[in-house]
Amino acid sequence: MSLQSIAWRNGALHLLDQRFLPCCTSFLVCTRWQEVAEAIAAMAVRGAPAIGVAAAYGLVLAAQQGEDVPHAAAALKATRPTAVNLAWALSRMLAAPSHAPAVLLEAAHALFAEDVAVNKAIGQHAQSLFPGNAVAIHHCNTGSLATVDYGTALGVLRIAHEQGRGIHVFLDETRPRLQGASLSAYELQAYGVPHTLMVDSAAAHVMRTRHVDFCIVGCDRVAANGDTANKIGTYSLALAAKAHNVPFYVACPTSTLDLNTPDGDAIPIEERDAREVSHICGQAVCPEGTAIFNPAFDITPAELITAIITEKGVIRPPYGPALAALI
Amino acid sequence: MSLQSIAWRNGALHLLDQRFLPCCTSFLVCTRWQEVAEAIAAMAVRGAPAIGVAAAYGLVLAAQQGEDVPHAAAALKATRPTAVNLAWALSRMLAAPSHAPAVLLEAAHALFAEDVAVNKAIGQHAQSLFPGNAVAIHHCNTGSLATVDYGTALGVLRIAHEQGRGIHVFLDETRPRLQGASLSAYELQAYGVPHTLMVDSAAAHVMRTRHVDFCIVGCDRVAANGDTANKIGTYSLALAAKAHNVPFYVACPTSTLDLNTPDGDAIPIEERDAREVSHICGQAVCPEGTAIFNPAFDITPAELITAIITEKGVIRPPYGPALAALI
Repeated sequence: MSLQSIAWRNGALHLLDQRFLPCCTSFLVCTRWQEVAEAIAAMAVRGAPAIGVAAAYGLVLAAQQGEDVPHAAAALKATRPTAVNLAWALSRMLAAPSHAPAVLLEAAHALFAEDVAVNKAIGQHAQSLFPGNAVAIHHCNTGSLATVDYGTALGVLRIAHEQGRGIHVFLDETRPRLQGASLSAYELQAYGVPHTLMVDSAAAHVMRTRHVDFCIVGCDRVAANGDTANKIGTYSLALAAKAHNVPFYVACPTSTLDLNTPDGDAIPIEERDAREVSHICGQAVCPEGTAIFNPAFDITPAELITAIITEKGVIRPPYGPALAALI
Repeated sequence: MSLQSIAWRNGALHLLDQRFLPCCTSFLVCTRWQEVAEAIAAMAVRGAPAIGVAAAYGLVLAAQQGEDVPHAAAALKATRPTAVNLAWALSRMLAAPSHAPAVLLEAAHALFAEDVAVNKAIGQHAQSLFPGNAVAIHHCNTGSLATVDYGTALGVLRIAHEQGRGIHVFLDETRPRLQGASLSAYELQAYGVPHTLMVDSAAAHVMRTRHVDFCIVGCDRVAANGDTANKIGTYSLALAAKAHNVPFYVACPTSTLDLNTPDGDAIPIEERDAREVSHICGQAVCPEGTAIFNPAFDITPAELITAIITEKGVIRPPYGPALAALI
């Protein structure tokens, strides 16, 4: 079992191929930036912070290959349009003193180390938001596998467990790619955090029939007004939380904040291959030729978000001024 | 391709085994009531009206076997606790003039014929509720396969299409058993009704980003106050509809109304095997030993339901007096 999704070793980027978890642990060894781009597009590596760091090492490979670094950065950026961390990490890399391999490697290592520290800070700041023995609902995967280590929302829950606070986590399975079932259940099992898996549409029923203290998710981009793009199903969960007066928290590094995007309507929503919905484990679950709509993300309006937790602290509405003050 | 789920032929009950659709069309031929009970419990036949009629023929088999008919009725009733149509059909059968095979067969045939007429009436009554060229969202399967023929909610949409009203249907795939993908998409393809399949949690995003005229679902039991039990995910969809001012319709025969149950909290919610969530197409999607919560149904409170459509007409809130007047 490995929970480290990204490692730089012997001049190559090793990526844990998350498409085959929890069944098998295999690694992609990338020696060309194009392989990194493919791995990000195919979601062998996924999670907004993780793809930012993977892309950063992709630029190191481009430099090692003697290729044009800004060209590689543009191609890497285009692999996935919604998460802003990708663009943020690439732009940090391009701003390095030079594009020599050793200089870029140092910059990528800095991003790598920073991500761990940021996640731990997010996890600490969040602890004041909920009581002991809390019951939480979590969507998608936002743990070690979605970041360099620890994770954002799942890191908050892991830290609560490590502090002996008695957390119990309901995990949305997160169709279509089932990151909740295959990745978050795998991580929480490894850490010994008590958890229960359910289909996404059961979350509202759980809130109606049991006591739930809060929902927590990661995110791929926060617009200047606080509207948040995250994995498809986040909006639905936030609406259910609102209806039950359950606090709804978004955990993310400040690199996920995008003050250049005014609101959620301006965030591009990636649509992915129909086959993610039509086929499961290689088998068709609907008739051939069925038209499919497969948005990878949705927008949760700021008014449904109780607080945004960053490494710099907890932000409350109104988000416009709070986000501007933070950056 | 067969869309008839239930047929009585040569003294046996033929059930289309819906567990293997859309890949293959196979039939269970039941000559013993115990086989019918197993088919209902395993969801080879499913849908509140369909299991009522299947159980009715199960009693004919019990009489043919020379077994105690009330005993068989009690066992058939216990197979699935939530849908009240099962209890209703069995109680109608037990009230037949005698429990002789020929008499029970006549009673079962009457239920069979009645179900088709009822569904067509529901479909007609509903047409006044929405405009031409409407966009609808539908959850689970409520078509021919869930009934004797035509269906409840899906029957409404099929009739709209047959009348040339230009309907387009977004289908929730309906985890965990994927009845929307495997059964509703299959039916709408057969009828030529334009449709788009999506994961359940995308419904709220569709309502936020496109014009949706209404949501429509079937149901398994309506309590005296209008609270409604239906497939898990219905409540989540109803909350999203409310947030977007999208009318939310429930279509069902009056046999689904249960005035003896005061409200949703008194409706028993069946929990099914964890394997429905943990395994898809025979493959594990989460680590071994993962705790799973798998409620088959949820409760949608009456205040989220715009109207209930029965064969006797359209009922509006307040549902308490309206339902009492109807019965």
